[in-house]
Amino acid sequence: MDDLFQAHAALLEKAVAASRERGFWAAFAENPKAYPEGAASAGKAAFAALKGQPFDLGEEGGQAGEGARVGAEVSPFGPALGITYAARSVDALVAHAERAGEGWAQASVEQRVGVALEILARLNAESFLIAEAVEHTTGQAGPMAFQAGGPHAQDRGLEAVAYAYAEMARVPGAVRWEKPMGRSSIRLDKDFHVVPRGIGLVIGCATFPTWNSYPALFADLVTGNAVIVKPHPAAILPLALTVKIGREVLAAQGFDPDVLQLAPDTVEAPLAKDLATHPAIGLVDFTGSSAFGSWLRETLRDKLVFTEEAGVNTIVIASTGAFAAMCANIAFSLSLYSGQMCTAPQTIFVPAAGIATEEGHKSFDEVAAGIGAAIDALLSDPARAAAVLGAIQNPATLTRIEEARGLGRIVRDSAALQVEGARTATPLLLAVDATDEAAYLEERFGPIAFVVAVKDAQDAIARATRAAREKGAITAALYSTDEAEIAAAIPAYAKAGVALSVNLTGGIYVNQSAAFSDYHVSGANPAGNACMTDSAFVASRFRVVCVRRPAAA
Amino acid sequence: MDDLFQAHAALLEKAVAASRERGFWAAFAENPKAYPEGAASAGKAAFAALKGQPFDLGEEGGQAGEGARVGAEVSPFGPALGITYAARSVDALVAHAERAGEGWAQASVEQRVGVALEILARLNAESFLIAEAVEHTTGQAGPMAFQAGGPHAQDRGLEAVAYAYAEMARVPGAVRWEKPMGRSSIRLDKDFHVVPRGIGLVIGCATFPTWNSYPALFADLVTGNAVIVKPHPAAILPLALTVKIGREVLAAQGFDPDVLQLAPDTVEAPLAKDLATHPAIGLVDFTGSSAFGSWLRETLRDKLVFTEEAGVNTIVIASTGAFAAMCANIAFSLSLYSGQMCTAPQTIFVPAAGIATEEGHKSFDEVAAGIGAAIDALLSDPARAAAVLGAIQNPATLTRIEEARGLGRIVRDSAALQVEGARTATPLLLAVDATDEAAYLEERFGPIAFVVAVKDAQDAIARATRAAREKGAITAALYSTDEAEIAAAIPAYAKAGVALSVNLTGGIYVNQSAAFSDYHVSGANPAGNACMTDSAFVASRFRVVCVRRPAAA
Repeated sequence: MDDLFQAHAALLEKAVAASRERGFWAAFAENPKAYPEGAASAGKAAFAALKGQPFDLGEEGGQAGEGARVGAEVSPFGPALGITYAARSVDALVAHAERAGEGWAQASVEQRVGVALEILARLNAESFLIAEAVEHTTGQAGPMAFQAGGPHAQDRGLEAVAYAYAEMARVPGAVRWEKPMGRSSIRLDKDFHVVPRGIGLVIGCATFPTWNSYPALFADLVTGNAVIVKPHPAAILPLALTVKIGREVLAAQGFDPDVLQLAPDTVEAPLAKDLATHPAIGLVDFTGSSAFGSWLRETLRDKLVFTEEAGVNTIVIASTGAFAAMCANIAFSLSLYSGQMCTAPQTIFVPAAGIATEEGHKSFDEVAAGIGAAIDALLSDPARAAAVLGAIQNPATLTRIEEARGLGRIVRDSAALQVEGARTATPLLLAVDATDEAAYLEERFGPIAFVVAVKDAQDAIARATRAAREKGAITAALYSTDEAEIAAAIPAYAKAGVALSVNLTGGIYVNQSAAFSDYHVSGANPAGNACMTDSAFVASRFRVVCVRRPAAA
Repeated sequence: MDDLFQAHAALLEKAVAASRERGFWAAFAENPKAYPEGAASAGKAAFAALKGQPFDLGEEGGQAGEGARVGAEVSPFGPALGITYAARSVDALVAHAERAGEGWAQASVEQRVGVALEILARLNAESFLIAEAVEHTTGQAGPMAFQAGGPHAQDRGLEAVAYAYAEMARVPGAVRWEKPMGRSSIRLDKDFHVVPRGIGLVIGCATFPTWNSYPALFADLVTGNAVIVKPHPAAILPLALTVKIGREVLAAQGFDPDVLQLAPDTVEAPLAKDLATHPAIGLVDFTGSSAFGSWLRETLRDKLVFTEEAGVNTIVIASTGAFAAMCANIAFSLSLYSGQMCTAPQTIFVPAAGIATEEGHKSFDEVAAGIGAAIDALLSDPARAAAVLGAIQNPATLTRIEEARGLGRIVRDSAALQVEGARTATPLLLAVDATDEAAYLEERFGPIAFVVAVKDAQDAIARATRAAREKGAITAALYSTDEAEIAAAIPAYAKAGVALSVNLTGGIYVNQSAAFSDYHVSGANPAGNACMTDSAFVASRFRVVCVRRPAAA
């Protein structure tokens, strides 16, 4: 067994410090040029070689050996992937995890953390291959698939390792307890054992299969829980590659690779409910619909359940000193990955009487038109449009756009890009009244947004924070030139549990969440019952048991 | 507003360090002699003055002003207390908490922690009065009521403050985030807000009203949640005194005292269910029966629920090198507070063929008789017997003893002490077979214990750890002279989530749990869904919301 903890100790130390300081820090470079020459083309070639083939999860532990194979992934950019994955039954998955988990629970915290850090390092080295897998399952454009699916996801995984390590490091291994009792003392030797909760189930989503799974996957692993990864049937490959690399590292270090298993399934025969309700599963992490999220929360008593669900992210435009830059910033946020981000804004509140800007007063219609025109400008160049929008992951999103056209006055219509074979759609922007809550207060996932005419700025903030409290929200944006108004709004947003971005212009967007600095999901509104990036996300994944005995004299 | 954080900073620093080092440390002296002369008699006098009177929770916030009064406490040592408490309806309690909670949520972490530390210091100064209140509600003997109800409970409260402060201190207040972007950079100013979960409900128990409530009460308070304390109707006074002191400190610091409210109720008109299910309650902490604990866990979706419930604590006697000392140690553990501790042992597994000791082989009957004789010896002096046993908190426990007599062969019978007016009972010790699981694997709260004849040491350990996994257990003890046997047993106990004490003799007992060192409840078996003394107990009681905006150039 290698001393992987020592090998990665400097990285861990920096990650722990970064998670406390929360300034900018990244462990894994987001710039493709920072990677070795040839890595990009090697990733493309590796992806091409995987297509049309049975995926090999490795011989160790027999994940490849049960006969049935599943897999029907189709790239939103066109072709079917033609990759199949070895399936295991729920009982087999659990039995393998239980057996493998015994040794994993006995490993030291440092051994487990070392393995996790090594997995992350190897994932990073495969970022171009993973980017291809993410691109051709989620529909993210290449640059985003690389960043969000590769280094950014790896950073989020590392962040979870850092939190979990910090919590476990607070528990001493062995101590001498000596209580003075007058002239003598009572002395005990105590050993503290970090004990896992059970088997962890991580249920992936179709839009961010790695980014949204890595925090739970790595938090479970380092706290001693065997992990079963159940990918979305439309985005198996990114997690299959992740599990394969994880199993290779585990096996190389003498652990049973079934500590980490893939549970591929199909839309027709889904495994998630049967897995989640199995008594041996102690932890469940889920990203996806509120319907399944609430089913998990209500069904699974006495299990640890962490969810990220739907929400309605809002923007309030009360006033601005940079109208064009604001419109451009909002346009990018609405367009990025065609609005298929849990952090993308959907509902934009604007006073019906218009707003003050550095260009003078702008009417409600002028504000709406300004955002629409900014979207047009952003997407006017076809290459840039393709790079920003990517493709539509799920055909149902196109139907949703079609249906949404009737929900208000069309400020800017959605249209397909002229990209052969790809499923694409530009943002649909609708103007509605404040009373049309049924339209704009329901999550409409994809490139659908509403400009809502409200009474005034105060009304806008009240509606935005109420939407967060009642419908859930991960992000919110506020544009205002009035510092008193901003100061008064902050406690309302804080109480609504939504991260607030104020007066963003330029190259930073409300939908961006930076590892080691921004918390992702607050857990304090219906958009999710937990933050994916804090101590509370990791601290309950293990328990501590003390063994004490009188100390030798 | 005083700088209470600064005033108590040294204490907090020591507490944080102690919770990490886990060697012996105590903030509050457990020796009554360490307190000012006259404090004990002043406490007695203060208690006497409270009896037969309406309890005054203070004028601030109007806790005294709603008319209805409840209270029917009767000392297990005899007299009715005759104290009544102002009752509030569930809606009134919640409305007051919501109003008061607004300002409390806005207070800084340091302000809240300072208030909590000041409350603890004032509670410590009133330890003798609180001891009287604990003694005459729980039936704990005077010395134990002082220690467990006073300084030990205060230490546990301080420990929760230390954990919560450490977690909140990891969240920076304000940071500059600067991401290099080639020749320029993107700079954001970020503020991180610690946000409470809602209103905390703390449901107290009748045997350890302060010790078992303080961790949750103080964890909720410092993380920004207003707190409603619902005492057991049989033990209101200790928590009424606590709340009164807390309200005085809050009011003196300019906070609405309704941040901390008492919710006294009656057996006939209990408030706990209505309070727990009120939508404004975000956190519920409960110590008590598994029936109500499981009702809470199953009913309260999307609330944070921490429970300590029933369990069956076991002792395995495989062999010993100190037979008499072992028997004396076990006798004390069975007798202390008449077995009415969640940490008291109940079920003692002994090989049917007997055990090896330093006095030679002892048969099963000799081991059982040895424990029985040790109980007799411990209780032979009436004054010592009274000081060890205290009184029986609940008359139902006497019925339980009566019914238990038929469950096995009586090794040592239970009997009342000759103490005028007090409800007392010495331990009942029964011998049973391994097959009599219905007798010994059900929690029989009070001075009832079983010596169970099992196949051998391995069988004993298997049964003890299975009992912990399936029935719950907070403590376990193992006596063995075989180091290999001990080493093999430890992972089984760890997996069962039960704290293990090995070969205890002398002045330390399996039922003792030391603040800042021993974790109390693991959360990893049915005896409770959470540890009351770790990071996981506090980390989810608050959320973090980030507000970010472009930095000024």
